[in-house]
Amino acid sequence: MLSLRRYRHCAACGALVQYRVPTEDNRERAICVDCGQIHYENPTNVVGTLPLAPDGRVLLCRRAIEPQRGLWTLPAGFMELGESVAEGALRETLEEAGARVALDGLLSVLSVPRIGQVHLFFRARLLDLDFAPGPESLDVALFAWDQLPWDTLAFRTVRKTLEHQQGGGAALLIDTL
Amino acid sequence: MLSLRRYRHCAACGALVQYRVPTEDNRERAICVDCGQIHYENPTNVVGTLPLAPDGRVLLCRRAIEPQRGLWTLPAGFMELGESVAEGALRETLEEAGARVALDGLLSVLSVPRIGQVHLFFRARLLDLDFAPGPESLDVALFAWDQLPWDTLAFRTVRKTLEHQQGGGAALLIDTL
Repeated sequence: MLSLRRYRHCAACGALVQYRVPTEDNRERAICVDCGQIHYENPTNVVGTLPLAPDGRVLLCRRAIEPQRGLWTLPAGFMELGESVAEGALRETLEEAGARVALDGLLSVLSVPRIGQVHLFFRARLLDLDFAPGPESLDVALFAWDQLPWDTLAFRTVRKTLEHQQGGGAALLIDTL
Repeated sequence: MLSLRRYRHCAACGALVQYRVPTEDNRERAICVDCGQIHYENPTNVVGTLPLAPDGRVLLCRRAIEPQRGLWTLPAGFMELGESVAEGALRETLEEAGARVALDGLLSVLSVPRIGQVHLFFRARLLDLDFAPGPESLDVALFAWDQLPWDTLAFRTVRKTLEHQQGGGAALLIDTL
């Protein structure tokens, strides 16, 4: 696994931290050598949608930023403090694709332990076709299922989610990549 | 909303941070005044199970730690780096209840924006009845559904998840509390 340790200094007082196992814990944490504060590090959620047009085509975004600039993805991004999973998915769909959607339930929950992330995608219905690329997208387009850009997809979680929907997507996909 | 801001100092170099909106972002982040590093803060996942015995009774734990010491809860805790959602739920069930279970799919995904958390509970089958309280539990017990301790439950997400299972729990419960 990649090292996901982020702390060299204490976020509270600025002194150095050491990674060691606190009393009554069972794994190493960043502990301040001065004030003793423990800084926990946990996985983050990436939330997004698989937006479907009334004719069944799927909306994809071509990434304008790294990683995977130039490749195609579903609209998604890091969930923010103060919002729900659903609100985050709607926000990212609007920010990246300029698209307004209604959510139709969770389609996939994909853990990616190597990078400390969980990706959650909702199936969604486009409420209109007035979408447009946001600042993090080069392009936004609708694709028929037999014309998906399988060779230029940005992420494995996006591929898995698209494959799941293509296969019917009845049950929630829970998997680890 | 509670303030969930954790940074006063930079975790990389120890200098002070300021909360301001970075270029090409749309919300305030902790930015180091010296080295410029941006420290993102995102919701954390709490993962757990609703363990069912072969006779249909549900396993609950009585909390030995704050918050809500002495009240009953489903086995659950913070998802850790390096594990999947499912692995975290199995680990917490073992740590808090000493219980070995098989997962039967996701039962609830409950966002709690006020505290920056998402709670994910799996329906689970107890593989044996040799459970025992771990260090964070005072007691572990099986309850028939007409004898659940509704008045002494620890968390609203636990109550919602129990109510959902009691009502049949067919579809995944996605809600915000």
